[in-house]
Amino acid sequence: MNQKMNQKIDDFFEKIITVRLSDDGRAVNIIDQTLLPNEIKRVDLRTKEEIFGAIKKLMVRGAPAIGVTAAYGMAVLSRGIEEKDFASFRRRFGEISAYLASSRPTAVNLFWALKRMEDKLDSLEGEETDVIIKELYAEAESIRNEDIEKSRGIGEAGFGLLKEIREKKGRAPGILTHCNAGTLATAKYGTATAPMYIALEKGWSGGDMHVYCDETRPLLQGARLTAFELSEAGIDTTLQCDNMVSALMAAGKIDIVFVGCDRVASNGDSANKIGTSGVAILAGHYGVPFYVCAPDSTIDRDTPDGSGIEIEMRSPGEVREMWYEKPMAPENISVFNPAFDVTPADLITGFVTEGGVIRPPFRFRESV
Amino acid sequence: MNQKMNQKIDDFFEKIITVRLSDDGRAVNIIDQTLLPNEIKRVDLRTKEEIFGAIKKLMVRGAPAIGVTAAYGMAVLSRGIEEKDFASFRRRFGEISAYLASSRPTAVNLFWALKRMEDKLDSLEGEETDVIIKELYAEAESIRNEDIEKSRGIGEAGFGLLKEIREKKGRAPGILTHCNAGTLATAKYGTATAPMYIALEKGWSGGDMHVYCDETRPLLQGARLTAFELSEAGIDTTLQCDNMVSALMAAGKIDIVFVGCDRVASNGDSANKIGTSGVAILAGHYGVPFYVCAPDSTIDRDTPDGSGIEIEMRSPGEVREMWYEKPMAPENISVFNPAFDVTPADLITGFVTEGGVIRPPFRFRESV
Repeated sequence: MNQKMNQKIDDFFEKIITVRLSDDGRAVNIIDQTLLPNEIKRVDLRTKEEIFGAIKKLMVRGAPAIGVTAAYGMAVLSRGIEEKDFASFRRRFGEISAYLASSRPTAVNLFWALKRMEDKLDSLEGEETDVIIKELYAEAESIRNEDIEKSRGIGEAGFGLLKEIREKKGRAPGILTHCNAGTLATAKYGTATAPMYIALEKGWSGGDMHVYCDETRPLLQGARLTAFELSEAGIDTTLQCDNMVSALMAAGKIDIVFVGCDRVASNGDSANKIGTSGVAILAGHYGVPFYVCAPDSTIDRDTPDGSGIEIEMRSPGEVREMWYEKPMAPENISVFNPAFDVTPADLITGFVTEGGVIRPPFRFRESV
Repeated sequence: MNQKMNQKIDDFFEKIITVRLSDDGRAVNIIDQTLLPNEIKRVDLRTKEEIFGAIKKLMVRGAPAIGVTAAYGMAVLSRGIEEKDFASFRRRFGEISAYLASSRPTAVNLFWALKRMEDKLDSLEGEETDVIIKELYAEAESIRNEDIEKSRGIGEAGFGLLKEIREKKGRAPGILTHCNAGTLATAKYGTATAPMYIALEKGWSGGDMHVYCDETRPLLQGARLTAFELSEAGIDTTLQCDNMVSALMAAGKIDIVFVGCDRVASNGDSANKIGTSGVAILAGHYGVPFYVCAPDSTIDRDTPDGSGIEIEMRSPGEVREMWYEKPMAPENISVFNPAFDVTPADLITGFVTEGGVIRPPFRFRESV
C-alpha cells in the first residue's frame, strides 16, 4: 500500500517537477507554467537566451524554482565558455550571471543563487576547467537539494498538524490555501503544499484530505497552478473564488489554513500574496487555525515589523482585461491592485518551518 | 452650481436608466446590460418574444428592474390584444403574463409585478378597452414610481450617513460596495448606490466621495456594472479584486460599507451576493460600519433567521471558464460556487431603508 502510494507520488513529481537537469545534463528542463492548466509541456533550455526568456516570461516562477533554474543554468552554460584561463573564464561567467540576473530584477532568490554560484567558482581558482564545471554542477545540485530538504522539513511539521486534526475529528481534514506555494514554485514539495505531499509519501490517500484552493485574482495562481498540481497528485481538490472563503468556513468545511509567505518581519508580521490577510481575519473569526509555511530564510530579521515592508502596486490591466475575451471593466477605471498584503502576527496561529512549528509570541532574533 | 450638478445627474439617468417606455409608448426601452461596460446600447422591446428574451438573456437583471420591465411589457402588449370582450381580453392577457413569467423562473419580483398587473386588469372589468389600456400603463408607471420612491428614501437615509462622515473626518468618505445594487438593477437610484446618487442630486460633486467597487467574482457585476455606472455618473470610482478588501481597509481607505440585499430574515440575518459575509467580517475587524441597503419589502418576516435561507449552488463553468479566452482551471476540477451567502445580523451596523436607518437589535415583526 505504502509502496504503491509512493510510486504514485514519485510518478507525479517526475511529471510535474518544476525544474531539473535534462538527462544528458546539457539543458535545464522545466515545465512551462504559462501553458498550465491546459497543457503539460516540458521544455529544454540550452542557451542563455532561453534561460533568460523562461524566467522573464514566467514559464518558471516562484522564488526557489527561479533560484534552482538559474543555478542549473550557470552550470550548463559554464560548459560552453570557451576561455580556459581562470581570469577569462571568471569574467565570462560573471557576464552570463549578470545577464540572467536582469531577467527578473525584483527576484531576490535569483540574485542569491547566482551569487552563490559565483562564490563557488571563486573558491575553485587554480583547478582544471573540467573540475570547475563538475563542481558547479554539484553546487547547483546542492542548492536544489537544500530547498527540497527545507520543504520536506516544513511538510513533516505540517503533516503533524493534519494528523492531529484527522485523529481528533475522525475525518479528512479540510485545508484552505491561497495562491501557489506549491511544487510549481519550488524544487519539490512546495511550502504550503508540503504537508499534503508528505502525507501522500507517508501513505495517506488523496481522499484522506480535502484541499480548497482560492483562485487568487488577478493572476489566478490558485486556479491555474495549485488546483492543477494537487489534483494531478490525486488529492481531493476544490476550487473557489476568493470571496467564497467566508461561506466555506461558515459551512464548517475548513479545519486549517496553510499559506506560503514572501517575507516575515522579526515580530512575525508576514507579507504574502494579496488576499492573505483577509483569509487570516476570516480564519480568526471562525476559529480556524491559520499557519504560515515558510523556510527560516524567509524571516527578514532586519525588518522589525510589517510597516517596513513595501508593497508593489501592479498594473490596472491585470484586473480590467487580463485573461478575458474582452475587457470586463470600464476602459479607464482606476484600479487598486497591490501584489501583496501584510498579515499581522497576532492573526497567525503559527509558522510551519523546517525546524518545526513556531508558536507565538514570535520574537525572531534580530540580526546583529 | 446645484442646478448644474442636477442637470448632469439628470443627463446621466437619461442615458443609463435601466428601463423606461419608448417615446411613442409602444415599446419597453432598456439598456442592454450584456454589452456593458464595452458598449452602451439601448434596445426597444416591442414583442412578447423580445421582452421574454431580454429577461432570459439577462439584458435586463436586478429584481426591481425585471419587475418594471414586465409591468411596462404587459401595458405595451395589452395594446396588441385583438379580443375586445373582457373575458377574451383577460384570457389572452393571462397567457402573455404566464409566458413572460416563464422567462426567469426564480425571479419573485417578476411574478409579483405580473400579478399586480393582472389584479389591476381584474379591477377594470366593464371598462372600455382604451380605458383599460390607459389604466394598465398607469399601473406600470406606479410600479416604477414606487420603486423610485423607495430607492430615494434609502438614498436620503444613506446620504445622512455620508454627510456625517464627511463632516466628522473633513474629507471625502471612502465607500466600499459589493456586486451591483445600482441603478442598473432598479428603476432609478439603486439601493446600495442610492446614497451616492442622492448626494449628487443634493449638490455634491463626484469628487466629494470615493467609491471602491469589489469586482465580485465570478459574474463580475462590480467590474462590469457598478464601476461602470458610478464612473459614468462622474463619481470617483476605483475597482479592486474581492481579495483586496482587507488591504483597502488596512490602508484606511474605507469609511463605510453599503451593500444591497436579496432577503432579510426577521432577526436581521441577510442573504446577499456571495462574498458579502466576508466583507462584513473584515469591516467588523477594522471597525468600519457595515450597512445593508434594502427596501422594507426585502424583509421576509416568515423566515426567523438565516438558517432558513436556501443558497443556490451554481455551475462550475462560471469559475473555471466563463469570460476567459481559454479555461483557467483544470478541466474537471470540483468547484464550490454558491450564489449567495448569509451575513449574520450581529455583523450588521444597520439597515438603510426607505423609512430611515434601522439599528440593532433587529426585531422585524413576524407576519401573522
